[in-house]
Amino acid sequence: MSAPMVTLYEVGPRDGLQNESAQLRPDDKLRLIAALARAGLERIEIGSFVRPDWIPQLADTDEVARGLPHEAGGRYAALVPNRTGLDRAVAAGLREVAVFMSSSETHNQKNTNKSIAQSLDHFREIVPAAKEQGLFVRAYLSTVWGCPYEGRVAPARAMEICRELRAIGCDEISLGDTIGIGNPRQTREIVQLFLRDFPPSMLALHMHDTHGTALANCLAAMDLGIATFDTSIGGMGGCPYAPGAAGNLATEDLASMLADMGVPTGVDLDKLIEAGALAQELVGRKLPGRRLQAALGRRKGGEARLAGST
Amino acid sequence: MSAPMVTLYEVGPRDGLQNESAQLRPDDKLRLIAALARAGLERIEIGSFVRPDWIPQLADTDEVARGLPHEAGGRYAALVPNRTGLDRAVAAGLREVAVFMSSSETHNQKNTNKSIAQSLDHFREIVPAAKEQGLFVRAYLSTVWGCPYEGRVAPARAMEICRELRAIGCDEISLGDTIGIGNPRQTREIVQLFLRDFPPSMLALHMHDTHGTALANCLAAMDLGIATFDTSIGGMGGCPYAPGAAGNLATEDLASMLADMGVPTGVDLDKLIEAGALAQELVGRKLPGRRLQAALGRRKGGEARLAGST
Repeated sequence: MSAPMVTLYEVGPRDGLQNESAQLRPDDKLRLIAALARAGLERIEIGSFVRPDWIPQLADTDEVARGLPHEAGGRYAALVPNRTGLDRAVAAGLREVAVFMSSSETHNQKNTNKSIAQSLDHFREIVPAAKEQGLFVRAYLSTVWGCPYEGRVAPARAMEICRELRAIGCDEISLGDTIGIGNPRQTREIVQLFLRDFPPSMLALHMHDTHGTALANCLAAMDLGIATFDTSIGGMGGCPYAPGAAGNLATEDLASMLADMGVPTGVDLDKLIEAGALAQELVGRKLPGRRLQAALGRRKGGEARLAGST
Repeated sequence: MSAPMVTLYEVGPRDGLQNESAQLRPDDKLRLIAALARAGLERIEIGSFVRPDWIPQLADTDEVARGLPHEAGGRYAALVPNRTGLDRAVAAGLREVAVFMSSSETHNQKNTNKSIAQSLDHFREIVPAAKEQGLFVRAYLSTVWGCPYEGRVAPARAMEICRELRAIGCDEISLGDTIGIGNPRQTREIVQLFLRDFPPSMLALHMHDTHGTALANCLAAMDLGIATFDTSIGGMGGCPYAPGAAGNLATEDLASMLADMGVPTGVDLDKLIEAGALAQELVGRKLPGRRLQAALGRRKGGEARLAGST
């Protein structure tokens, strides 16, 4: 088997579940995480160490972290908003953490209760603390493709923040199209700009599929050398700004397209579909992932009488 | 306003409705077609003149054709399977017709009850008859990206058929990813091959979104010069081979992506969303188009408490 050329970073158990109304039990989350690991996903974000009353869906992240299936050799990470969260992550045995901020002031204020400058100051304390303990630190930079409050964000401004994040010691930066409004032309412009200053290996793209453009955006970025993409099993999560709309790019959608293109990801699509079917069962709603619904539909079989099908 | 660089060929009233279980009344179809025309769609396929008992949803195509809003200057077409269908189309006042066949024998046999050679022979009778009456003739070539029965189809075989279609007098050929399994690498290969022999102006792409790749495929083809894409309002239609899966690429999804990329299409996105909302109301189910659901979701408003949104 050739080495993965593209890595899918699974955010379903964190970014997906935090926006689902269903409250999963820790053992069900662990069943889902085990299914994702079995499918060959080597990087999985399992939850968030924010205050339990803020995101009740993720209040059990300590327990989930303690029960992770480590035999598969996967890498597990969790979001940490502050020093307390970092300490909880370490106490639960995690070796990777993710900090998060936005490239637009208004979203950052609403999402973290800090200005951008305050977020960076804050990272200057907790990122070195994480690095001292040997952790891998990912930083999320949200709203790079646009902010729900401020509209377009200047890519140069986002890059300026990323230079700070690198200087602070972050190992990887995931650039987010938080509200899923990106288009491939814009993606090319943003990625080309970032690649002037960053090696592709340090960057990930976190695309949402709200407008259906996530795969096209990933394709545009992949053509430029980006090789890590954040996805959520089944497209779990939705969009907090548009109830009923799609949210995170579905893991199977990207995995399937890449497999069909001959791009190795290390993922077993059949097992991924099983994980997607489990995710759908656990959250109790039809998930938006196209490839998942196609696979489940084919199982049901059925074929309308053909007469002028195109 | 600059001239459209990309044309969206709307197939919702035909390819969409023929796969919806709802049976629309002719006046509702005409309301929908009027809404599509108001949104700036200049080419609309309004139905099919196949035997009414074959596709009950389209049994009223004669009546729909007679009620079309011609003041907008749009071009309307309908599928014709044979000479009777052609005569009905002409009698109803249509100036464009579409013939259809597949690039794989099994699908062609099931869909038209003919071999590929028999379909071409058949076209040798009806296409010249249509051209003699001054009609514009589109030909659909289905299953170019893959056949539900035979798997991959050799692009060279599809191109061989297309040369025949051109020799027979077809004005435009719409290459179909009938089961929506295409990927951008494959699309590049197919389009590059076809562009050796055909001007881009003679080709359209008819992509289905079953695996979520339709926009990425359109992007890949557009980068190579293809400028006409078939879409269905709201993604009406589904996939006859996978109940519950997505089918035709949603018109708003492509229109929105192109607008965001600065590619003129002549389409008014707000009015297109109105047409999509009407389509959803008429067929009575949540349609799969991402952009439509995002627009409808934003109207509902709502925003989860943000705390670690990425």
